[in-house]
Amino acid sequence: MGGDHGPKVTVAAALELLSRDPEVRIILVGQPEPLRTALLKKRASLSDRLTIHAATEVVAMDEPPAQALKKKKDSSMRVAINLVKDGTADCAVSAGNTGALMATARFVLKMLPGIERPAIATTLPTINGHVYVLDLGANVDCEPEHLQQFGIMGSILASAVDGIERPTVGLLNIGHEAIKGAEVIKRAAELLRASPINFYGNIEGDDIYRGTVDVVVCDGFVGNVVLKTSEGLAWMLGQLLRREFKRNIFTKLAALVAMPVLNQFRKHVDHRRYNGATLLGLKGLVVKSHGGADAYAYRHALQYAVTEVRNNVTGRIEAAVMQTEPLPA
Amino acid sequence: MGGDHGPKVTVAAALELLSRDPEVRIILVGQPEPLRTALLKKRASLSDRLTIHAATEVVAMDEPPAQALKKKKDSSMRVAINLVKDGTADCAVSAGNTGALMATARFVLKMLPGIERPAIATTLPTINGHVYVLDLGANVDCEPEHLQQFGIMGSILASAVDGIERPTVGLLNIGHEAIKGAEVIKRAAELLRASPINFYGNIEGDDIYRGTVDVVVCDGFVGNVVLKTSEGLAWMLGQLLRREFKRNIFTKLAALVAMPVLNQFRKHVDHRRYNGATLLGLKGLVVKSHGGADAYAYRHALQYAVTEVRNNVTGRIEAAVMQTEPLPA
Repeated sequence: MGGDHGPKVTVAAALELLSRDPEVRIILVGQPEPLRTALLKKRASLSDRLTIHAATEVVAMDEPPAQALKKKKDSSMRVAINLVKDGTADCAVSAGNTGALMATARFVLKMLPGIERPAIATTLPTINGHVYVLDLGANVDCEPEHLQQFGIMGSILASAVDGIERPTVGLLNIGHEAIKGAEVIKRAAELLRASPINFYGNIEGDDIYRGTVDVVVCDGFVGNVVLKTSEGLAWMLGQLLRREFKRNIFTKLAALVAMPVLNQFRKHVDHRRYNGATLLGLKGLVVKSHGGADAYAYRHALQYAVTEVRNNVTGRIEAAVMQTEPLPA
Repeated sequence: MGGDHGPKVTVAAALELLSRDPEVRIILVGQPEPLRTALLKKRASLSDRLTIHAATEVVAMDEPPAQALKKKKDSSMRVAINLVKDGTADCAVSAGNTGALMATARFVLKMLPGIERPAIATTLPTINGHVYVLDLGANVDCEPEHLQQFGIMGSILASAVDGIERPTVGLLNIGHEAIKGAEVIKRAAELLRASPINFYGNIEGDDIYRGTVDVVVCDGFVGNVVLKTSEGLAWMLGQLLRREFKRNIFTKLAALVAMPVLNQFRKHVDHRRYNGATLLGLKGLVVKSHGGADAYAYRHALQYAVTEVRNNVTGRIEAAVMQTEPLPA
């Protein structure tokens, strides 16, 4: 039903994608009335490419996942994931409650054999393109084996979506080699090195944006902090730049002149273009949009989902994991 | 001996600070010849406010800390810290090898009673000022008690340096309340809540730059990732903005007009102004400068050290820890 902004956003995004990509079909899952109203406002109608599948309940953004899972069996989220399970849909996209989406997806779809934990993966912009980062918050305490599986899944994702033959995979670590601890990271590095992927080795936080590797592996706590810290810093820098340009009449004139360049810059780093995180490791595709996404951002999440479907991300991960021999502990 | 750039940087910074602050005295610790050469180049001479204390060895930037500690007993780093221990100096400032500095400081100065682990603290800019963040890499695996001690030390630091009466202290966590794990964080929150500080509660990564709290507590792994990720993102945004302004003749003209505003903006967020991290929890003050610091940045680290000395940070932390009753486990 569309995260913070509801069907207004999701319906607009769906219509835009349908007009851009003639091969896509979209099933709007949720309470039919608000969905119909949103369609009406856009003067759009249902077709064989745009249908409504009714779901009577909505999971609130702050609802505890366990409660959503137990009590809301006819939520739009649950019904959409059911459609993936029964093969009606190739992917479920939701801007809803992340915890509930993850719990529901895991419960309904189950894990792929060989994957113990699902991971949330997204792309972030880099100086020369983008990078896949996982996990972003599905797993707080990770064992080395989980990080290894994230590395394999991330490698497949980058390879499938971007067509990179052997994506480089970096393990997020800290620089001070002499510091004790982080045994989990050390062991994870050994496991990743022994995996059938192009393991780059350890990287540090700044390497994420330097584009040092194609895939960054970290636990969900660290990944979430990376994502949120980046959001906060980008927001602050944007605010301060705006403030500086608004200081007086001269800076305002300078802003007018610089506007086209600044807009171009903004477009390049617009986080909305990077909207769409994939729940990896499940027997089916689920893509999570930012809860506060607007139609532009949500359309990017939908497009991202389409690309993953077209490139058979789930099937490739399953095949890769089957080929990975378990390592001696 | 000055990190990546040697005495050229440290001597220039020392001279600048001496001319700005008539009450400061500086002891240059290191190999006398390079130090004298650097002074000569600046046409400066020794005085009662600027002296040289000889040390024959230098710890390399990539030298293992244990080796530096064992084999380089007459390194500039070690000798400078000895001067703090024997009361000759109030603070040692170094741009050298972080791990070696930490190990040496801990070995020579010892921990304050009641503090189990030293922490590295620094300030980061926020939308409305700055925030203290600790730990930045001294401790990778932290127990809840360590995070509690970091909170107390950070609170004292913010209070002593900035004169905030009851600084707010936030514990860096991730948003998804339902996610299992992170027991260390949960327990740390309980301990911090029971401590004689103004504990704000959990914060998320974006809160760092939003200025939500005065002090951010996290383990050294996460803190290091926050710092490096921020460096990387700021660097990337700067590069992309520059690239956009260099695109063609029109954007270059726009850049000329916007230059004064952009320079003002850059000045505001210049990371060199935030150079200087404090090793907290020791019986004596040690400040770490960024290894790649230039004279401007290094002077800020020196000034930061002076402010901490003037506000008796070590004494205040010792007093605060003595007052904190141990909590039942």
